[in-house]
Amino acid sequence: MKFKNTNTSDFARVSEIQFSRGSINTPAFMPVGTNGTVKGLTVEDLNETSSEIILGNTFHLMLRPGDELIRDMGGLHKFINWDKPILTDSGGFQVWSLGDLAKISEEGVKFSSPYDGKKIFMRPEDSIKIQENLGSDIIMVFDECTNYPSSYEEARKSMELSMRWAKRCKEAHTSKSALFGIVQGGMYTDLRLESLNKLIEIDFDGIALGGLSVGESKQEKTEILEFMSDKLPKDKPRYLMGVGSPEDIVEAVRYGIDMFDCVLPTRNARNGQLFTSEGVINIRNAEYKNCDEPIDKNSDNKVSQNYSRAYLNHLQRTNEMLGSMLATYHNISYYQSLMKDIRTAIKDNLFAKFLKDFYNKRNLDMPDGPI
Amino acid sequence: MKFKNTNTSDFARVSEIQFSRGSINTPAFMPVGTNGTVKGLTVEDLNETSSEIILGNTFHLMLRPGDELIRDMGGLHKFINWDKPILTDSGGFQVWSLGDLAKISEEGVKFSSPYDGKKIFMRPEDSIKIQENLGSDIIMVFDECTNYPSSYEEARKSMELSMRWAKRCKEAHTSKSALFGIVQGGMYTDLRLESLNKLIEIDFDGIALGGLSVGESKQEKTEILEFMSDKLPKDKPRYLMGVGSPEDIVEAVRYGIDMFDCVLPTRNARNGQLFTSEGVINIRNAEYKNCDEPIDKNSDNKVSQNYSRAYLNHLQRTNEMLGSMLATYHNISYYQSLMKDIRTAIKDNLFAKFLKDFYNKRNLDMPDGPI
Repeated sequence: MKFKNTNTSDFARVSEIQFSRGSINTPAFMPVGTNGTVKGLTVEDLNETSSEIILGNTFHLMLRPGDELIRDMGGLHKFINWDKPILTDSGGFQVWSLGDLAKISEEGVKFSSPYDGKKIFMRPEDSIKIQENLGSDIIMVFDECTNYPSSYEEARKSMELSMRWAKRCKEAHTSKSALFGIVQGGMYTDLRLESLNKLIEIDFDGIALGGLSVGESKQEKTEILEFMSDKLPKDKPRYLMGVGSPEDIVEAVRYGIDMFDCVLPTRNARNGQLFTSEGVINIRNAEYKNCDEPIDKNSDNKVSQNYSRAYLNHLQRTNEMLGSMLATYHNISYYQSLMKDIRTAIKDNLFAKFLKDFYNKRNLDMPDGPI
Repeated sequence: MKFKNTNTSDFARVSEIQFSRGSINTPAFMPVGTNGTVKGLTVEDLNETSSEIILGNTFHLMLRPGDELIRDMGGLHKFINWDKPILTDSGGFQVWSLGDLAKISEEGVKFSSPYDGKKIFMRPEDSIKIQENLGSDIIMVFDECTNYPSSYEEARKSMELSMRWAKRCKEAHTSKSALFGIVQGGMYTDLRLESLNKLIEIDFDGIALGGLSVGESKQEKTEILEFMSDKLPKDKPRYLMGVGSPEDIVEAVRYGIDMFDCVLPTRNARNGQLFTSEGVINIRNAEYKNCDEPIDKNSDNKVSQNYSRAYLNHLQRTNEMLGSMLATYHNISYYQSLMKDIRTAIKDNLFAKFLKDFYNKRNLDMPDGPI
């Protein structure tokens, strides 16, 4: 992996990350392909929407169909017919989501498969091995996501465990893929800094911010982002995990984040929520039943070009698969087009104007922050 | 509509039907787009599979989103973004499927909407008006599907009602679209002949065989097909409604049928049943979990070229949308490729060889019949 930082506007930056399977332009949005498919999209669709990298879920793929099966089939890329980069999460977040069903020790995590109840013990080394079996281009360290809220002592204990696991992950990592560390530390800036310094010491190819979007307020998240913005290494990609809405992404870019993933555009599409340049609409609403307008009159994607709001309303109300397919295509197109606009604005030194327009179109006040 | 009969092999024939929206090559298979979408496929997919005409369901579309809404949106083609021909059924079959919930009189049929319970009275004239609102290229007459089994008297009474309705449909038809009559008469050949002669007298653009695939045996169906084969007008398209499996289609082509529609390739795809050149497989079976082979090694469609049976097995077992999407794409590709092979064989005067190979590959005995 090679990281090329090309343009900046205050903290916001445009970069290119080169992999053997192709480059990604950042700030980048990674559609989530939980089970080896971005729900409702073909790989042709992903290419059409200009998606350059997708995310795969270690936890789900190790259980079904199994990482060794995927390895034997030639790896995840071949299995799902996607030849561009794939980032895999470590499974840590999903294990944490199991709550009391997972038992965490120094050695690793014990949990039961939600599919067949089979007992599984997952150590940091296992997570790396699974991600190597999948053939991921970016492997994430196995970490413990800190609960929100947490006392200072809980957050410290959890962060320190994650850092010991990060070191074990680094030692277990043998493939040529990139390996990213994950900053933890809850809402405590000194713990976040300690975590970051530990990751820098271990030496990772990129740095992710974990333990956010877990219930904290927007203000708390912004405080962490602001605090980290001048401390994250400039020469490495920065990834804000599990974030977020268009507004969340735009704000995080202001603080220097390069990479994003979130189920929002795909999951919400299946519920009829469509992202547009003027905000979110729910296409199932009765007001769209007779509406001959495109989803987003400012969009040149094939859904807005070829279909009316009335047709999407009809498809969603009759629970037709195509309703979810077109809505997902639209939302991922919208996200990728947003990322492209962000990159162009930063490159052209027009990011301040971009931000102003972005919030104006949505009738929202622009939050304070760097530009 | 213009019908050009180009090649024949005994009864089997290759023709071209020209519409203002493009030509269809027959024998043709029409994917079923019940609610204004062929379930799981985009219009780009339909084009890629070489589908030249699709079917729309009057009954479903009049209820949701409503034929007047579709008319106001510029017609069904524009609404669903499909610029090639569309055939619409008349709603007769769906009304008949309601059983006791529909009340049939000389004037028409009274039934309740299965969606909101609203009482609807549908006369033959209404069916034509609805299909004209949709902007269909081929309109079907509103008929009563004869029950199976039926006594001779019941079948006669039902057929005669359908013929009176056929006349009313012809009189009500004002658009430039083609209008097809439907032969009824149950399993009684003399009633079938009487029905056909009545339709010829009224003068339709094409003739459909209705009231089949309603529970009768394969032998009974073949007897009707055989009986009709030398009586159907040679200069008009012949459409066997609701049929069928690849074997059903191949057999009907032997008796001179030009057009087919069936939910089999789409519905079965969603249940994991895939049609291949060597017969049907259920991709959900455990034997395919580790199978690195393509769905059909003799197919050049993108699903067989790009994905393994193991991947389709995984997608279907995890109930991923893409599992249904790729399976449907494969099945419709298979059907369209079968139709193309049939047309080529007839044109090249190799239909006898085609039939022999078709049954050999499936380890089935070839039924007696014309070639």
